[in-house]
Amino acid sequence: MTTTGKQLFTTLAPDGTLKVEVAETQFPDPTGNQVLVKMEAAPINPSDLALLFGPADIDNAQFSPGKLVANMPEPFNSGAKGRHGQRLPVGNEGAGTVVAAGGSEAAQALVGQRVACVPGHAFSQYAIADAAMCLPLGDTSARDGASAFVNPMTALGFVENAKMDGQKAIIHSAAASNLGQMLNRICQEDGIELVNIVRKQEQADLLKGLGAKWVVNSSADDFLPKLCEAIDATDAYYGFDPIGGGTTVDACFKAMERVAVSKMSEYNRYGSNQPKRMFIYGRLDLGPTILTPSYGFGWTLSGWLLTPFLAQAGAETVARMRKRVLDNITTTFASHYKREVTLEQMLEKDAATDYRAMKTGEKYLVTPWG
Amino acid sequence: MTTTGKQLFTTLAPDGTLKVEVAETQFPDPTGNQVLVKMEAAPINPSDLALLFGPADIDNAQFSPGKLVANMPEPFNSGAKGRHGQRLPVGNEGAGTVVAAGGSEAAQALVGQRVACVPGHAFSQYAIADAAMCLPLGDTSARDGASAFVNPMTALGFVENAKMDGQKAIIHSAAASNLGQMLNRICQEDGIELVNIVRKQEQADLLKGLGAKWVVNSSADDFLPKLCEAIDATDAYYGFDPIGGGTTVDACFKAMERVAVSKMSEYNRYGSNQPKRMFIYGRLDLGPTILTPSYGFGWTLSGWLLTPFLAQAGAETVARMRKRVLDNITTTFASHYKREVTLEQMLEKDAATDYRAMKTGEKYLVTPWG
Repeated sequence: MTTTGKQLFTTLAPDGTLKVEVAETQFPDPTGNQVLVKMEAAPINPSDLALLFGPADIDNAQFSPGKLVANMPEPFNSGAKGRHGQRLPVGNEGAGTVVAAGGSEAAQALVGQRVACVPGHAFSQYAIADAAMCLPLGDTSARDGASAFVNPMTALGFVENAKMDGQKAIIHSAAASNLGQMLNRICQEDGIELVNIVRKQEQADLLKGLGAKWVVNSSADDFLPKLCEAIDATDAYYGFDPIGGGTTVDACFKAMERVAVSKMSEYNRYGSNQPKRMFIYGRLDLGPTILTPSYGFGWTLSGWLLTPFLAQAGAETVARMRKRVLDNITTTFASHYKREVTLEQMLEKDAATDYRAMKTGEKYLVTPWG
Repeated sequence: MTTTGKQLFTTLAPDGTLKVEVAETQFPDPTGNQVLVKMEAAPINPSDLALLFGPADIDNAQFSPGKLVANMPEPFNSGAKGRHGQRLPVGNEGAGTVVAAGGSEAAQALVGQRVACVPGHAFSQYAIADAAMCLPLGDTSARDGASAFVNPMTALGFVENAKMDGQKAIIHSAAASNLGQMLNRICQEDGIELVNIVRKQEQADLLKGLGAKWVVNSSADDFLPKLCEAIDATDAYYGFDPIGGGTTVDACFKAMERVAVSKMSEYNRYGSNQPKRMFIYGRLDLGPTILTPSYGFGWTLSGWLLTPFLAQAGAETVARMRKRVLDNITTTFASHYKREVTLEQMLEKDAATDYRAMKTGEKYLVTPWG
């Protein structure tokens, strides 16, 4: 027996033609530790967009009902060789109701319950999910629980990682995002100093309204001195950047080094001994990351992804993090959406061009049953 | 009582005027663990050049006997604010004879001996050095022992660091340098695979003549596929780059990821799980480091400096490394020089423009007594 429902797929042909479409699919019966979830809501996160569209030319795509065809420019098409010809489902996370379960006790216990889940194909009317990764939502609605994994665990992951590394302060850029606001709340709760970097005055105002102590505007003329001031006051030599391309990381390293050097009693040709650490966890800007030789050799830059971090943190820490998210899903870890769309509406021009712009605070929620 | 001798100083004025000059200096009597070394030979390393000239415009400098005046362009002049107005000695390392010593037993034991030392002001007729950092050279000449610290300990440091991190293969760029040739010999002795990146065919030929198994030419059209081939064969996901600016690190990460992805059975939007690690340990190219978003998030790039590495490695490891260098100073750890210059000749136009070009295999040796 199988269940039939609509699902979204993205396919990149070797010639660079990207086809994204809604199609009827058959979902197999769940087995073992699997559950079948009737999906009610799924957020469109930046990490989903990387797979859904990548850097394809959506502005000049051909749109038809339930379908979109666009061109993937070079060098990105060659760079995505690994997915050529594969019809890939999309959607990291979402929430819905468990309608069937495999034989395991954990899976059976979830039947009939509303859960948040991480199926990897959440832009769909049904999804097969791992029971161990499902969070029972209780009275929380699917809309409120749809973003219970990616953003909450990422924001909490930053704080956990900082604590593991003995840090008491964090820099965060693109800080007015849903994730940034969450991080602001977590840091306030945990007594971690947070230096928020935004690029608009209204975003600065928003964060200050939410109690943020340190907010600097990267578009302002005094960005670097203000960033230095915040680092000087907080000792934030450790930060997370979702932009990736451009000079955000470079500016952070520069400011950290400037503060560290100002505290040195004598000149050192190699710069300060202050370790400086930045992580890139997203690619809102697909341009190259630019690092200038202006902060010595005492710095480390890494990519950061949630899954390897959770594997490194271990089961006990992850369980503690998940409980904290669930207990505070409509407060600390609440997400906000600009608009709800069906699977078909996801592929209409106005929606697609709007959500793929990934503007701060303008997240979309997919409701596959309308 | 003091000793008088000639010494080289570099001074950067706040207006960007860089003055480098030879001057008579008085050296105080050594105390405690210090020794006074009559310097006979000191190499001009890239790390010395960063302080000696930095990115100053030497081509258009004014040259007079024992003196050079050049302009430091922006943004480098502002970036070097920490040294403005300070008259700084130069020269990390060198060799000579201990002519006086402080009261400590270790210092007294060195009197009359030829030693390699790391005074930080080696471009000088005399230097005050720390006895604990002196290597007694025995029958080895000062010329042969002059480069016993920076390059040998750095090359050996790479191999030690790789072993600490569980690596069995290393990538090295600008690999035909004195340091690169040393690393080639160390890796052969220790059974570590070494992927050498050079930018000229003659450098590739040189290294192959020295028994290097993997040499790739970054100027060749097939650079990236050849680099992939070498990584595939060696599992070198770990490398050291002295160039810094440009795309060398980027090319290494790209090739590492391409090899890792080719071994994956299914597409992952986030790239491979293969950790990729690169270190920048020099700035032969002062331009920005360019990192493109084409190797997922499983990468880490750090600055690498010898002193913090030695501090981290601990006294026992450092002692073992120093013994190995001393035992093999004219073989594994031998350096070669293009030309010998006096302190005054260092500041003549033909010499200064030649050694500051830091061409591979064209290192200069300063002999302060002519």
